[in-house]
This record gives sequence, structure tokens and C-alpha cells, in this order.
Amino acid sequence: MSPERDRYFLKIAAELAIQNVKENKGGPFGAIIVKDDQIIATGCNCVSSANDPTAHAEVTAIRNACQKLDTFQLTDCTIYSTCEPCPMCLGAIYWARPQRLVFASTKKDAAKIGFDDDFIYQEINLPIENRKISTSQINIPEAEELFKLWKDKYDKVEY
Amino acid sequence: MSPERDRYFLKIAAELAIQNVKENKGGPFGAIIVKDDQIIATGCNCVSSANDPTAHAEVTAIRNACQKLDTFQLTDCTIYSTCEPCPMCLGAIYWARPQRLVFASTKKDAAKIGFDDDFIYQEINLPIENRKISTSQINIPEAEELFKLWKDKYDKVEY
Repeated sequence: MSPERDRYFLKIAAELAIQNVKENKGGPFGAIIVKDDQIIATGCNCVSSANDPTAHAEVTAIRNACQKLDTFQLTDCTIYSTCEPCPMCLGAIYWARPQRLVFASTKKDAAKIGFDDDFIYQEINLPIENRKISTSQINIPEAEELFKLWKDKYDKVEY
Repeated sequence: MSPERDRYFLKIAAELAIQNVKENKGGPFGAIIVKDDQIIATGCNCVSSANDPTAHAEVTAIRNACQKLDTFQLTDCTIYSTCEPCPMCLGAIYWARPQRLVFASTKKDAAKIGFDDDFIYQEINLPIENRKISTSQINIPEAEELFKLWKDKYDKVEY
């Protein structure tokens, strides 16, 4: 994809996000998903209007694209996002396995207008006992049984 | 919360996940959300049955709990998960801001039965030019305009 074409799609994502903010639907973030030079799906942050803390632009666009394509993998797709993905969205992108990711603003730009991404990036690398959200690990036999069940399952759908 | 009570809730999450695998709905992961010693919501991995790569147990449980409580914040809640959250789910947990997180199996246990979590944890820390999913950053003026719009918005709902 040419840089001009990348800019074209990023600009569309930004225009959607500008509209999203003006309509009070959520934060200033937009994403679009492109396959074969066509827009498959779009998504804007709608955390506050949908009461869904996972409804970031990239997650929403991925969900919409997967519904449209009837699959849980975005093979050969490009995800355009107006901002560098937070850890949640970056994780979602890795699980969706697109071909490319292109973003505009960085996580440092997001931090400057009050978004926690950089804090979450730091927390992820801390040992669980040092994290701000109190975290404990407890072994239970049922969790081992659960993983064994999956390992031995002959008709599982891997993802 | 006593360790016995934590084990009790983890066991319920594991039993839900065992049922989930038996019914072919998705991977071997379950989560429940508890507030005031009551189960508010549950979630199991339904990536393959819902065609949604973001439908991990914790994300699903968070979404269900937020719908039930009519809010985008899980203040004073505990999230119980049968497994250490992947980066996507850990990010979702940080955005939902619960009081506590308790999990059973670790990401290393998950890697042993074929789940990519550990790979994604490694990718997050790489510079974007070294990541397995091709990633580019491109500045566009519309993305700056978008952040300025948010910064100056007098009636924004912060999350």
C-alpha cells in the first residue's frame, strides 16, 4: 500500500472519530479495517455511550469486521487507527491476526490528553505483586482439569 | 476476601469453562465478576462460536457485568479468571478498574496447551519496526485536530 493510500484511510478514520466526539458517543479514537483496498468495517470509541470499557475503536472495528466476514481472523486485512493501540487493543489485533497495522498519534500523544495507555503498558511488565490492581494467583485442581480437557479434545476449534 | 472464598469463586469459573469446552463454544477459559460477595456476571471464551477474536472470558464477563451494573467501571468488584489474563484481557481489566483480580493457571500453563499469550506479551515490548505484524506510524493533521477537539471539549465524559 502506498503512503498516500495509508494517509487516505487514516484520514477517514479521523473524520469518523471527530464526528464521534461531536456526537458525545465516546473518546477521540477511530479505526477502519481495509481488505483488497475496500473498507470492510469501521469503529469508534463508544465506552461511555455503550457502558462498555472494552469498546475502544480498534476492538469495535475488529468485532464489526469479523461479523461482516463471518470469521474470527482478519487475514490479509489492514487495521488503520487514529492512535497507537493501547495494550487491550494491541492484544485484540494480535488475536485477530491482520496483515498490517497503521496508526497516526502515538501513546505519548494520548497520555498528554489524559489517556491511561502508558500507565497500562508499564503495569503489564510488573510482577503481579507490584501492580496497582491487587492481583493474586491461586492454584485449583479444576483449572488443571480444564486445560487437560482442552488438550485431549479431538474436535476442538483452535483460534 | 478469604483464600477459601477466592477458591470457591475460581472453582465456579472453572466449572463454567469446563461446560463451555464440552459444548464447543470456545477455548478453556472462564471468568466471573463478584461484588459484595455476589456473582454479578460470568463469561466464557466464545471466540470460535461468536466469530469474535475479542470474546475472551474476561472481556465477555466485563461486558456482561457493565451491562448489568449500567456503568463502564467495575469499582469494588473482584474479577476471578481461570487463567492469567492475556494482554488484551489485562488491558480490559485496567480500563474497567476493578478492586482485585484473582486467577488460577498462569500464562506459562496456557502456552503449554498452545495459546499465544506469551508471544503477545513479548511483542508488546518490541519497537514497532521489529514486530511480527507489520506496523507503521504516520502523522496526519486530522489526528492532531481530533485530540485538540477532545482536549477543548467542555462536556466530555471521561472514562
